[in-house]
Amino acid sequence: MMILGIDPGFAIVGFGVIEAERGRQRLVQCGAINTPAGEPLPKRLLQIANDMDRLFELFQPDAMAVEELFFNNNITTGIGVAQARGVILTEAERFGVPIFEYAPSQVKLAVAGYGKAEKRQIMDMTKRLLSLRTVPRPDDAADALAIALCHARSYTSRLQSPDAARPGSGRYAVRKD
Amino acid sequence: MMILGIDPGFAIVGFGVIEAERGRQRLVQCGAINTPAGEPLPKRLLQIANDMDRLFELFQPDAMAVEELFFNNNITTGIGVAQARGVILTEAERFGVPIFEYAPSQVKLAVAGYGKAEKRQIMDMTKRLLSLRTVPRPDDAADALAIALCHARSYTSRLQSPDAARPGSGRYAVRKD
Repeated sequence: MMILGIDPGFAIVGFGVIEAERGRQRLVQCGAINTPAGEPLPKRLLQIANDMDRLFELFQPDAMAVEELFFNNNITTGIGVAQARGVILTEAERFGVPIFEYAPSQVKLAVAGYGKAEKRQIMDMTKRLLSLRTVPRPDDAADALAIALCHARSYTSRLQSPDAARPGSGRYAVRKD
Repeated sequence: MMILGIDPGFAIVGFGVIEAERGRQRLVQCGAINTPAGEPLPKRLLQIANDMDRLFELFQPDAMAVEELFFNNNITTGIGVAQARGVILTEAERFGVPIFEYAPSQVKLAVAGYGKAEKRQIMDMTKRLLSLRTVPRPDDAADALAIALCHARSYTSRLQSPDAARPGSGRYAVRKD
């Protein structure tokens, strides 16, 4: 199964593609979409949409995994990230790629075995699980790989569990409003 | 000049199309894109993208005007609105439609002549400026028309002012990060 992990942003979108099979995961490709700081936001968002389309075409992922969005201190950056995330979800839906979202604590638990693991530990475990010699750069690509790994490991364990028929609990939730 | 005003949201996107010429504005069409509450967010966002594309094709607007995004009390709704807004900006950019954004106080000032005007006054002035018999429904459509009117009236006054050559101050700002 080909999994695309995404770390959304409007300046940098981290991506990580892994292949997961029988409880093992291998790196296919990782990197980042960078948009120029000097351009108006709509132009940067369109670049993200176009580059996401290329990722979907190139890797034909069976699933896309993204982190849930939380706003902490910087609300202006948060609005920009949310706008970019909307574009990324839309393109995945356009390509018919199933979308799964995970809370940061789920990613930490799945990758490092501990829901409050520190960033350093997540990076190290990402490196180890994919048998890499160094932690991938930039950080956004490593984060994206951790999210992809989270999906691979959550999904694998669900397939082996008694409720395997149940769709992924991380599957994008229906929103009531 | 054909102007498309947009009031962004993920459940309802209000739109209002007006034609502005020589200081006068007339209503072309207004309404709302409604997305079903029972669907996952990515599906709703894709519907918004597709419906926006149809608006661009149908009305061939010379400009799209949207309000700046501010987060007040409900941050969860705010994230959803920001995600939808990102999709709307991206589609406008895809169609090459110039995007202009205005603060709520600018809309109030341009439509009602007072930056702290109340919603009721904005609605009444929107009705009057477009020579309508009633305030358009739903509210989201009326809000979108007010934003379109704001652009028409700001743009017109700029064209008549000494600094007419200067690009619209409401033009989407370049973002430094």
